[in-house]
Order: sequence, then structure tokens, then C-alpha cells
Amino acid sequence: MRGVILHAPGDVRVEERRDPRIEQPTDAVIRVAAACVCGSDLWPYRGIEDVSGPAPMGHEYVGVVEEVGSEVRNVEPGQFVVGSFFASDNTCEICRAGYQSRCVHAVPMGGIGSQTEKLRVPLADGTLVATPGTPPEDLIPSLLAASDVLGTGWFGAVAAEAGPGKTVAVVGDGAVGLLGVLAAKELGAERIIAMSRHADRQKLAREFGATDIVEQRGDEGVERIKELTGGLGAHSVIEAVGTQESMMQAIRSTRPGGHVGYVGVSHDVELPGLELFFSGVHLHGGPAPVRRFLPELIEKIWQRRIDPGKVFDLTLPLDEAAEAYRAMDERRAIKALLTL
Amino acid sequence: MRGVILHAPGDVRVEERRDPRIEQPTDAVIRVAAACVCGSDLWPYRGIEDVSGPAPMGHEYVGVVEEVGSEVRNVEPGQFVVGSFFASDNTCEICRAGYQSRCVHAVPMGGIGSQTEKLRVPLADGTLVATPGTPPEDLIPSLLAASDVLGTGWFGAVAAEAGPGKTVAVVGDGAVGLLGVLAAKELGAERIIAMSRHADRQKLAREFGATDIVEQRGDEGVERIKELTGGLGAHSVIEAVGTQESMMQAIRSTRPGGHVGYVGVSHDVELPGLELFFSGVHLHGGPAPVRRFLPELIEKIWQRRIDPGKVFDLTLPLDEAAEAYRAMDERRAIKALLTL
Repeated sequence: MRGVILHAPGDVRVEERRDPRIEQPTDAVIRVAAACVCGSDLWPYRGIEDVSGPAPMGHEYVGVVEEVGSEVRNVEPGQFVVGSFFASDNTCEICRAGYQSRCVHAVPMGGIGSQTEKLRVPLADGTLVATPGTPPEDLIPSLLAASDVLGTGWFGAVAAEAGPGKTVAVVGDGAVGLLGVLAAKELGAERIIAMSRHADRQKLAREFGATDIVEQRGDEGVERIKELTGGLGAHSVIEAVGTQESMMQAIRSTRPGGHVGYVGVSHDVELPGLELFFSGVHLHGGPAPVRRFLPELIEKIWQRRIDPGKVFDLTLPLDEAAEAYRAMDERRAIKALLTL
Repeated sequence: MRGVILHAPGDVRVEERRDPRIEQPTDAVIRVAAACVCGSDLWPYRGIEDVSGPAPMGHEYVGVVEEVGSEVRNVEPGQFVVGSFFASDNTCEICRAGYQSRCVHAVPMGGIGSQTEKLRVPLADGTLVATPGTPPEDLIPSLLAASDVLGTGWFGAVAAEAGPGKTVAVVGDGAVGLLGVLAAKELGAERIIAMSRHADRQKLAREFGATDIVEQRGDEGVERIKELTGGLGAHSVIEAVGTQESMMQAIRSTRPGGHVGYVGVSHDVELPGLELFFSGVHLHGGPAPVRRFLPELIEKIWQRRIDPGKVFDLTLPLDEAAEAYRAMDERRAIKALLTL
């Protein structure tokens, strides 16, 4: 089978890989229907994260179950499934508390690589959620979004305690930030301020429910959020970038007692203790426990209540993965879907 | 009147100060019945925080109202009152959300100095809570504790979401940490692990409800907490020190999805973003909104359900304040009460 391998920064190739097989009785093997490139794939692609030797890429996937191990009970061959970027048993104490991405048996799917024709999914019973049936073609992008980028934006909104009566600000206009806007809207937020300086992303943010756009960044962006919130700051801020500037922008845009939900993977971030202390904000985030939200998100997509697949503004066949990476790296695309 | 003034690190004196008077129609003036020395008073005393010129000291107080401004409605002369270390209007949006220490009109009482015979309290209606009557002498230490150290430990426990079924670890065995133990117990925690290597403080921690004592610190302390919690970490950790080591000890002792409540004023703390991200913890803290809890805490003290005044293991007249500071600085006393 064919799959995407990163050899060095900027050097992504589609190569022959060995077909996966059931290794553990709790495994499943799925035929991938669609995969995609994540903002976090760009960190090693850009050389900001170390690349040591050829690495299989991708951690987002939807597909059809081909084979299951002898202990798998919850999914069966032929079912269309969505999984998260961390395999999880969904039964340990951490999973039951809703933190499946930190399951005591968690397996990062990025280490296996989902930008490929077939994928071994460990802990299939805990990881995979079957859709109500075979989805129509046009729902596949949205179901794929649920695998990470929607689930991550959703977690950001939940961690930021977005909800009725709340003003929510979103730092970051990538796919996660945009779907944070969608999540805040679905969770009932009263006012949603998207921070973006790109017309196409502003447009999508408005489609997803943003009521205000702030183009300023850094201290100026913070000032603007304060102006829009009676000097107090937003109740809830979703941070979807992961840099020092974006984290401080998020913390400073939040009112005392408010909530920051941060889902951008932190890179070279150091939070100053004294400022954080006196900010009085709640800070919660990390790798999103997407599995917690999957049943609810699949249901909303199936009912066509939400259309998160709109974040895919570039669709290419798997064999053109290198162009998908380039387009995202150069910000010509918000998010690229790979068809199989 | 006489009051405590810090002239330079280590140089605390009791001197003549001008009697306070009503300056704003929302002020009250109280005759202080008891004040005390806070762990945070030791930062400037030790020269770790800058001291610029003579500074009035103290921000904890209970006393009897002597005079009120023309707009004060909720308290009247003759009432015994407890106040927080931040004066607050208790009516702004931030106060109504329970964050009175970050009231839009907040006044830090430390700038006025409560280690004194008489004290002007701004925003008296929002700040002061009257007790049900004149308290018996033996309740005064506990009521004084409510003014900061109990309210702060309580906030730490609330921020850490201590409650039924939870294992709570407490980093720091000063008065705040010890009262964090008491708060966790009152909030219904199942298991409370006090981290302390001092026999007298361990004893008080057990009296307040600690079920386990951990003497190790740093990485060893974290390992010990993990051992006691099935490898997962505590559900809730109260951080009551404010150093880099104590913050990291708290974060690392908390399970993914768990809660850190941090109430030690941060000094030279930098939180590493990537580690915090993958920890998956909730982080909340800051200057405690003591006013939120005062009515409930006064009621518990009045009913003799809790006895937080036990943290005062040294009682001296105001004139011997210098010795009170020395005793706390040298850790000969957990907390010193000043009588008037």
C-alpha cells in the first residue's frame, strides 16, 4: 500500500509501505476513506520539531473496518468509523473522566501514520466510533474533521467554558480556531469574536457563527477585546495557535475568573507565573480528548446541523500529499483533504 | 495611634501613625481587635520584594466599626466585622461572578496597612461582613483567619475542585496549606495528602483532616503521590507556596484532567508551556476572592464547626510586631497573631 513519509523538513513523499495487520487482539485494520494534513504536521515539516529519520505522517482518519482482532466487540468489518488521533481504551479511570487523549494505554496515531491506504488502529473498541450507516460522499469531509480538528476546536470551547450568555474570543484563524468558533456557537455563546486578518478566514468564521472580527494582534488585539467587553475582557478565550504571543494574547484577553481553553500545541512557551497569578483566569487545555465528543459530533454531522468540513479548501489525491503540505505551509490552504 | 511600618528588609517598627478618618462616603473606620502577619508580608521583609521607603504593613483584620461614611448601608458602628485583604464593591460584574479580589474598584488593604489600632476600610458595604454578634474572645483568632489565610486556603481547595470522592494533595505546610487541608476536608474530600516535613505542622494537618503525610519534595514527592494514587496522580492539588519547585510539584502531582488550585503568590515562576499542555491539568488560582466565602466561613466558625485559629501558634501584643516577623521568618512560628 502507499503512504506519506516525511524524510526531512520540507521533504514529504508518498511511498510504498507494508500493509498493516492485526498485531494485538484489540486492534482493527481499516481501509482509509480520507485523511488530511494537520497544522501540527507542519511543525516537523518546517523543521521546528526534530525529524529523526523517515517518519510516517498523519493522525486524522475515517474509513471502513476491514478486519478486527479476536477481542474487539464494538466495531465490525464493513462499518464506517471515525477515530481520534490518540487510540484509547475508553475504560481506564482517566478515560472515564473524559481525558481519553491521556488514557493510561494511549497510543499516538501519529506514530503509526494515517495518511495511508490502510491503517492499524490499536484499542479499536475504545477508539473507533461507527457512524449510523455508510455516509453519503458529501459528509465525509465533516466526519474526517471530527477526527481531530473539530474535536480539538470543540474541546477548546468546552475548556474555555463557552456557553449561553458568554462572550467568547478565538485566537487563531486556522482550522482549529475556525471550528472553535463553530463549537462556541453550538454551545450557545452569545457573542463570538474571531481574531483574524485574512478575508477568506474571516468569511468562514462568520459562516460558523462569529459576530465580531478583530484584526489586531498582540497588545493591540487585547485592547480591542477589552473595548468590545466593557473593559473587562472576554468570559472565554480559545487559544488555537501555541506560541508565546498567542498564549499571552489569550490570557490577557480573558477577564478575571474567566476561562482560557488552549489547544494549540505549545512551542517555546513560558508562562510568567506572577502575571498568570494576578490574571485570575482558569487555564485548561492540552491534546483534545476527541473521543469524549465523537458520538455527539457524529450525530450533529449526520443530522447536517453542522458542516465543519468547510475548513477543507483543498482536496487532493493521496499521491499529491507533497503539494497539500506545501499549500498549507504557504497558507494557500486552510486545510487539505487527501482522498483515497 | 500606633501601627507597624517596614523601613527596610528586616527592619519592622511600631510607630505613631495618624488616625484614619472617613475619606469617601463609602468608607468605614474600624477599631482593630486583632491583626496578624502573613506569609506574603515576609517577601518584602526578606527583601525578595522591593521595599521603597517606609511602608505600612498588614492586610488581615477583624474589629469593631467605629464610624461609617454617609453612603454606607450594610454595616453600622458597634458591629464586629471581618473583611478581606482586597476592598471590593461586591456589585460589579467581576464581583458578582465571585472574583471580588479583582473587583473593578478593588483596593489592596496592604497599601493601607492593617497592623494598626484603627483602620480605614474603603467600599465598606462590599468589603465588610458583620458577625452575628460580638464574638467570644476565643473565636477571634478563627474569625481573623477568615480574613485571608482561611479564605485563601479555601479558595485553593475550591479552585482545585476538592470534593467527595476526590484525593487532594496539598503542597506547602504554611498556614494557607494547612487551612487548605481543612477546606478540603469540609468540602468532602475522601483522602487528603499533606506534604510536610515538620512534625508540628504534620500534627496540625492531621487535626485538620489530612489522611496521609508525604515528607518528600520535588520529583520524589511527585513519585510518592503517584504511588499513593495508583500511578495516576491526585484529582486535586492545592499549591500554597509560590515557587518554581512547588508549582511544578503541584502540576506533576495532578492526574490528567485534574485540577491545580494555586494560591501561593508566584515568585520567579515560569511555567513551561509544552509540559503544561501535555499535563492536561486545569490550572486556576490567584489572589483569593475571600469575600465570596466570608459569610459561609463566619457561619462555620460561629457554629464552632471549624477551628482555623489553631494556625496561630504565637500571640504577641502589637508593640512586639518585630518579634512576630522574626519568629515567622525563622519558622519558629506558623503564624503570629497581634493583639490590640
